Amino acid sequence: MQKHVVIGQAGGPTSVINASLVSLVKKLYKSHKLTFVLNGYEGLAKASFIDGSLAIVEKVKAHEKVPGACLGSGRFPTDQSVISKACKNLKAIKATTLVMIGGNGTMEALQLLDNEAQKNQINLQVIGVPKTVDNDLGGTDHSPGFGSAARYIAQTTKDMNRDLISMNNFEQVRILETMGRNAGWLAAASGLYRKFEEEGPHYIAVPEIKIKTDQLLSVINRSVEKHGHTLIVVSEGVTWEGSESFKKENGREVLGGISNQIRNSVKQMLNLSVRAEILGMNQRSASLYVSETDYQEAVEVGNYAAKVIDADGTGQMISIERISSFPYHVKMDTISFKNVIAEGERKMPTVFLHNREEYYKWLSPLVGPSIAYPSPIGKEEINVPSTYQL
Amino acid sequence: MQKHVVIGQAGGPTSVINASLVSLVKKLYKSHKLTFVLNGYEGLAKASFIDGSLAIVEKVKAHEKVPGACLGSGRFPTDQSVISKACKNLKAIKATTLVMIGGNGTMEALQLLDNEAQKNQINLQVIGVPKTVDNDLGGTDHSPGFGSAARYIAQTTKDMNRDLISMNNFEQVRILETMGRNAGWLAAASGLYRKFEEEGPHYIAVPEIKIKTDQLLSVINRSVEKHGHTLIVVSEGVTWEGSESFKKENGREVLGGISNQIRNSVKQMLNLSVRAEILGMNQRSASLYVSETDYQEAVEVGNYAAKVIDADGTGQMISIERISSFPYHVKMDTISFKNVIAEGERKMPTVFLHNREEYYKWLSPLVGPSIAYPSPIGKEEINVPSTYQL
Repeated sequence: MQKHVVIGQAGGPTSVINASLVSLVKKLYKSHKLTFVLNGYEGLAKASFIDGSLAIVEKVKAHEKVPGACLGSGRFPTDQSVISKACKNLKAIKATTLVMIGGNGTMEALQLLDNEAQKNQINLQVIGVPKTVDNDLGGTDHSPGFGSAARYIAQTTKDMNRDLISMNNFEQVRILETMGRNAGWLAAASGLYRKFEEEGPHYIAVPEIKIKTDQLLSVINRSVEKHGHTLIVVSEGVTWEGSESFKKENGREVLGGISNQIRNSVKQMLNLSVRAEILGMNQRSASLYVSETDYQEAVEVGNYAAKVIDADGTGQMISIERISSFPYHVKMDTISFKNVIAEGERKMPTVFLHNREEYYKWLSPLVGPSIAYPSPIGKEEINVPSTYQL
Repeated sequence: MQKHVVIGQAGGPTSVINASLVSLVKKLYKSHKLTFVLNGYEGLAKASFIDGSLAIVEKVKAHEKVPGACLGSGRFPTDQSVISKACKNLKAIKATTLVMIGGNGTMEALQLLDNEAQKNQINLQVIGVPKTVDNDLGGTDHSPGFGSAARYIAQTTKDMNRDLISMNNFEQVRILETMGRNAGWLAAASGLYRKFEEEGPHYIAVPEIKIKTDQLLSVINRSVEKHGHTLIVVSEGVTWEGSESFKKENGREVLGGISNQIRNSVKQMLNLSVRAEILGMNQRSASLYVSETDYQEAVEVGNYAAKVIDADGTGQMISIERISSFPYHVKMDTISFKNVIAEGERKMPTVFLHNREEYYKWLSPLVGPSIAYPSPIGKEEINVPSTYQL
């Protein structure tokens, strides 16, 4: 049966959100009518629709490996009036199906839309496709977008370690701030490739655990004493005793800056040279850091959404179920919006918080390997050339 | 004749500075005695020498593709007492040759060392190998390290454009701050891959030209009006009417933060949503962004330094002379420290400042190509699906 499928993207983009969109479109466009909606829920409320002509389908397909959300995504508050307008607009264009690619906020909005459609006796099939860099979306082992962001952070930390070690005589403490408002998945990923004691992260701070200032300062002191430097990684959503209240912008908390607060305090308390650096948008948009597994899974959730559409599923999000980590094997499945929402924002489980190695076993297949670096050349190797005397 | 070659690295590291070191070492270690010095001039002054045993040579060789300076570099003021100690230490270990891989500061220090050695009738061959991410080193068409940093900035700007365009309904102005204290080579590289009007950078600010605030605000206004967003790139060393004095740390200006000042002003003056982002250390350490040409040239300057050592050259820096851009062809040469220093910190020439396309023709072979992205999907494509009526 030919359906009229409306497709959109919502929330913060990832470097592989277009891969999900394109795989879905490729599966659908020959047998169904497609309509694209611009800018997520804003577009649904304002009827910013694009007819899925062949020309537009080709244009969308060309975005397969392009970061960002090519239909526009963004953050738009989905209150009842938005949901109700979206529903009316979908009815007006006789949509049979709505697919949105998004995270927690998207799944909540889809659930509201599903309810609204039922209340108004509109026959609307509603499907969610998971994406998030933060990995805080429940109901799935993990979400596309996370693996590539984690790879960016792990490789960046590994590379910056070597830069910091080089600058031993000039710079002592470097604090990297990662994305992750509520969960530490990304910050914790920074240690994935760590191999040598001289390399950081020597301390990782995640939102799940409030920073113990004394502990942090003592790690810094010990590491600077031993190695001449230390690399610390903090999640943007981390709290500590010195936390100031976060600025609000557009009704939404704009984080970013906790590392600067920590820098100022460490500087003052330990009298060391400290640099704070916020790892920016590259975490979610750096095309050269896309993880192969992440990309493949972004494609697969799109493919599977097409299957669910054809099988008349509704009220569901595509989920990834992990069968095994070594060898890495997953299968696609679905979960109801209700169950996704019931789980709330997914934090790191206790076992991963307290056993980093367990987390890295879980994480490693999503991120992939990195070229091995040799151990740093250190002070212990200083000697006067053997054949000469000073 | 077997020489005793002392080798070190100085200044801020790059992602290919070890490639120069390793190629030099590979050419020398079989026929000469090698000694490595840790942490640049600090190590010369403090006699932090490592005997170039086969084990250490192997360890150094393993750093060929590792970012950072594996011998330690850093910033160390090279006053007369440092120069004089360095000279004594080199004499004590009976060094015949000193090779330092570095930038402007390094070449100045090498010149002082050369003078000091001559004054004390020490027979010391002194060779400089160029490296800088800023490209502000004179006497050479460009320096290894710059091409990879430029690639990081060009690709990051291209990727972030797509992220920003996605967030049209949420975020309007993004200001990226690049490295570049005195010269705009890196900031200007941000536009290398720009292809579509919707994409930034819509304005690039370089240290060579003071920002005209009115002009900047008018570009932002026009671009936000037309596209819904704008991406601005500023060099860390840029000045504008609102410039505050920069903080000093360790006797050296620590820049970084001009984008935040500009953000605050733009926000206030235009009442737009503005985000500033400092592109951090990844500019000089991101291993995945190494430009193939940059890497090759880093190897070649090392190889050529070995040749110059064997040919008894002294008081000279290796330089890259460009024969042609299309096809790209260079040859290695040398230039005296005196002439390098006489040129001072190299700014962008007027022709590149005022004709961006000329600059990109010059830059393109150093950075290499990027995968083509299609034109963004825009508001002009919004329509009500043709077969339905609202």
